Amino acid sequence: MSFLAIGSIAIDHLETPFEKRENVLGGAATFISIAASYFVDKPMLVGAVGEDFGEENLNVLKEKNIDLSGLQIVKGGKTFRWHGRYHYDMNNRDTIETQLNVLSEFNPVLPNKFKEARYVCLGNLDPVIQRNVLRQVKSPKLTVCDTMNYWIENKLDDLKETLKLVDALIINDSEARLLSQSPNLVKAARLIRAMGPKILVIKKGEHGALLFTDGSVFAAPAYPLETIVDPTGAGDAFAGGFTAYLAKVGDLSERSLRKAVLYGSAMASFCVEKFGTEGLLNLSLLEIDDRYRSFLELSRIDEE
Amino acid sequence: MSFLAIGSIAIDHLETPFEKRENVLGGAATFISIAASYFVDKPMLVGAVGEDFGEENLNVLKEKNIDLSGLQIVKGGKTFRWHGRYHYDMNNRDTIETQLNVLSEFNPVLPNKFKEARYVCLGNLDPVIQRNVLRQVKSPKLTVCDTMNYWIENKLDDLKETLKLVDALIINDSEARLLSQSPNLVKAARLIRAMGPKILVIKKGEHGALLFTDGSVFAAPAYPLETIVDPTGAGDAFAGGFTAYLAKVGDLSERSLRKAVLYGSAMASFCVEKFGTEGLLNLSLLEIDDRYRSFLELSRIDEE
Repeated sequence: MSFLAIGSIAIDHLETPFEKRENVLGGAATFISIAASYFVDKPMLVGAVGEDFGEENLNVLKEKNIDLSGLQIVKGGKTFRWHGRYHYDMNNRDTIETQLNVLSEFNPVLPNKFKEARYVCLGNLDPVIQRNVLRQVKSPKLTVCDTMNYWIENKLDDLKETLKLVDALIINDSEARLLSQSPNLVKAARLIRAMGPKILVIKKGEHGALLFTDGSVFAAPAYPLETIVDPTGAGDAFAGGFTAYLAKVGDLSERSLRKAVLYGSAMASFCVEKFGTEGLLNLSLLEIDDRYRSFLELSRIDEE
Repeated sequence: MSFLAIGSIAIDHLETPFEKRENVLGGAATFISIAASYFVDKPMLVGAVGEDFGEENLNVLKEKNIDLSGLQIVKGGKTFRWHGRYHYDMNNRDTIETQLNVLSEFNPVLPNKFKEARYVCLGNLDPVIQRNVLRQVKSPKLTVCDTMNYWIENKLDDLKETLKLVDALIINDSEARLLSQSPNLVKAARLIRAMGPKILVIKKGEHGALLFTDGSVFAAPAYPLETIVDPTGAGDAFAGGFTAYLAKVGDLSERSLRKAVLYGSAMASFCVEKFGTEGLLNLSLLEIDDRYRSFLELSRIDEE
């Protein structure tokens, strides 16, 4: 089924305790649509870049068969840039610098074809923009939203308006605690689901993810990696894999939602194994299914 | 099969953000042996208390059919006392006061019957005492060890000597990082298993637990509780349930070890639902099996 991603497209400057890289392709919509490309044909990408974005980065997206007719290349504009530095534990990071550039006036108008999308993944962005995009989509079957601390702290009312409109929210545990004002994740989940999204995924980094639906909780393990090269984009890869897997199977049963969490987790685990998008670019469907099965094995107990 | 627990027996003064309680029965050996009592007949308890311990507390242990012939009641002595205060998130706590009392001269000599124990659970204690006890057990089939930050920081060489002698270690994630000097838990597990224990369980509180064995990782979810009344003893209840389940089934297969992690998790989840040992005292085997099945459901995906 048709899949649409919206979010930032970035050029990142990344520092981990072990390596520094400049001019790395990044951004939520980038990771989401690349991850989605393994599950759906021609994922539609909505975003904006500047003239500095470059052929090479465009080709990365084209090679993943991403529909770029919703990509705005702003004349004289500069691409959004983010400079981040990860702590020694790789779980925390500081933003050294953010240059919004073309994102500061980003307010996309969807091409007609994009308005027919059935599966919509709203990457982390101003919740007002997320809402404006959502309103242009005629009859989505599933809308999935990501957000971050910044919007919870600075645009809470707008975020709550957006949350009323989406089917699913994917956030991390510290964001869930902040949004719900509850330190207990189970209580946090109940409070957040009452804000709108009936499907809630709370990502816990090295501790896996929790899926909350009506009367049910699913606990997904994390893939046991000894070395994490670069955590950038893992959350977006999760959201892309999660949403696009559901688009592929075309149903929203509890079983499919649980499998989607593991496929999302699989894409996130590939993502962190290399810098930027590198870990997501050259995967085979077999590798992805193998990783999915590894996730199953992690919590399997064979019945007698 | 025969089961032996050693560790502190305490009278606790507990403060959570919601309630304070004084003179609450506690201590590692207490929680371990009560949790074990649901899986094995007459768990053997090795410990020491003072004359202040009281009939009421003794009766709690007797009613769980615990073999108290290894319990030393020190004439004129006072029972070990711990005063702890939990933070708002219930994940962290401060020790306000510790009175070692009879524990300061605790160096148990096992009754002959106890020396025949096949399953041994060494609760958190000075690693020298753990080792001295272990040397008295003639041919254990499984030895399980708990420890804490204090011994890692202050008696590391002794702890490492003890670790060489045990089959399994159960510690929490911050202790695993401290002991291995690695922030990555997968790497930490590899380094710790190289110190001796071939079976390693890393407990992650609200994030569940990981079991590391030869070439295999098992991820157990946490039970999604909205309200945690008192976390005291949860780790000991886990160790008791884990070890005693294995004593009950009498084998150490990967499958049994994985089930043991879930039974340990089940006992820990009952423990935190009430104050002190209260959550562990009046369980039925049916309730415990139901909780075990709830853990299975948390990570189950039905096959097609």
